Amino acid sequence: MKLLRVGPPGEERPAVLDDAGRTRDLRSLLGQTADIDGDFFASGLAARVAHALRRDELPLFDGDGATGALRGRVGPPVARPGKVVCIGLNYSDHAEETGATPPSEPIIFMKAPNTVVGPDDEVLIPRGSVKTDWEVELAVVIGSTARYLGSHDEALACVAGYAISNDVSEREFQLERGGQWDKGKSCETFNPLGPWLVTADEVPDPQNLGLRLWVNGEVRQNGGTKNMIFGVAEVVRYLSQFMVLEPGDVINTGTPAGVAMGMPGQPYLRAGDVVELEIDGLGRQRQTVGQA
Amino acid sequence: MKLLRVGPPGEERPAVLDDAGRTRDLRSLLGQTADIDGDFFASGLAARVAHALRRDELPLFDGDGATGALRGRVGPPVARPGKVVCIGLNYSDHAEETGATPPSEPIIFMKAPNTVVGPDDEVLIPRGSVKTDWEVELAVVIGSTARYLGSHDEALACVAGYAISNDVSEREFQLERGGQWDKGKSCETFNPLGPWLVTADEVPDPQNLGLRLWVNGEVRQNGGTKNMIFGVAEVVRYLSQFMVLEPGDVINTGTPAGVAMGMPGQPYLRAGDVVELEIDGLGRQRQTVGQA
Repeated sequence: MKLLRVGPPGEERPAVLDDAGRTRDLRSLLGQTADIDGDFFASGLAARVAHALRRDELPLFDGDGATGALRGRVGPPVARPGKVVCIGLNYSDHAEETGATPPSEPIIFMKAPNTVVGPDDEVLIPRGSVKTDWEVELAVVIGSTARYLGSHDEALACVAGYAISNDVSEREFQLERGGQWDKGKSCETFNPLGPWLVTADEVPDPQNLGLRLWVNGEVRQNGGTKNMIFGVAEVVRYLSQFMVLEPGDVINTGTPAGVAMGMPGQPYLRAGDVVELEIDGLGRQRQTVGQA
Repeated sequence: MKLLRVGPPGEERPAVLDDAGRTRDLRSLLGQTADIDGDFFASGLAARVAHALRRDELPLFDGDGATGALRGRVGPPVARPGKVVCIGLNYSDHAEETGATPPSEPIIFMKAPNTVVGPDDEVLIPRGSVKTDWEVELAVVIGSTARYLGSHDEALACVAGYAISNDVSEREFQLERGGQWDKGKSCETFNPLGPWLVTADEVPDPQNLGLRLWVNGEVRQNGGTKNMIFGVAEVVRYLSQFMVLEPGDVINTGTPAGVAMGMPGQPYLRAGDVVELEIDGLGRQRQTVGQA
């Protein structure tokens, strides 16, 4: 099932894609104030949506016409995540390109949750930035509370689904401005997410997905989640030893090789650039780069 | 004005202290679902509360009896902060005790927002922890959106108020487990906050407050915000260059000397310990330490 949110920023409405790729409205089923957020997963509403979808009980989205082809902006597929946790240097090829030793256990850092924007929203280069970089990542969305999990099976049972994430990063702020990475990870618009949350039942092996990123049509990243040093199940289990993960939380699981920092000439993003991202089965993003 | 939230975890009700120290209920003024959160500050409700308080229009809190003396648990004074941003090594005496060079610009890291608990709630030592430490800090609560602020005056105008914060920290997780501090800062119950949010108009000089912390009755930290390397106005201005601060966000502005890590024998917390914290004009906290 592909869950999504459609509408202007802050006014998104919850929706789901049917088998024919048409957008179905969830407000008639869930109520006029319903959204896809932590409460949605905590209340088991995903199962209710799946049931209604199978029985063809969901109306086409308003304004999409008889074909149900989506019009208008797509927002991030999760509203108001309580936190965005990131795993650093989690692909051996990316660790190598940055000159870092592959970590012996997961490196944890955070992005401010208000960095999360829609998959095709503009990404803003921060004022004073000269090193804004891209990172295609597999995002995990948490579906149930995770606290001191004991096994990988328990960890995967806490996953609601997956989405594409662009963990946009300012390398000077991250690495040259005093101590901790978070400073270069939390700028406005720095986390395009979506277009969909693909529920976990449709992603049987999260360690077998190709990830790709292009800048102005040239491929920059072309990796696979099989190269993650710590897989999704281990990342969720591990994180649950250090914090309580809650429904709606987002985990960015790391990026493969091919970021600007690791390339000859370090071609960081500039206003006007176009970034496109794709992960097998999770759709596609397209962002134009602007200036804050 | 001293704003607070009273009730069991997740069911707190908004309140305010009157001049006689009695607890006044805000639900009759603001509605049954109202809370003290980002929307409260964004909507300018603090001014409405102040007006009603001056006109003596607020009922005593249910169950507190004719005296209005507070009964029951006090929760954190802000519900669901969107983010908790922290400033590292921001007191010269603390930087010295940890062996670190004082930073040339603020060090930024984050705590998971679901670490925020009430001022007297139990603090849990994480499983596997042997280095759980305390940090008394002045917390700043943001009242209006802060983005690329140009001056210290603009920064102070974005502050809703102040509270006591205990930035509980696991030093092994923070410093010896691979790379970034966030890993030792986000454990369950790691951010007691409160008892009150004291509005900024009642804190004319945030750089002239004494901070104290005791463990089992012995004073461990006894500092003053005058020793902050970067003051409140500069911290807020600086952060707004790297992220968008929103109403209800919390900033922990750093801790003075006297943490366990810097003491002879490093007397880290153990289950059964009692931690008390105080900041001039902001009240007092008292936590019993338990085991997760």
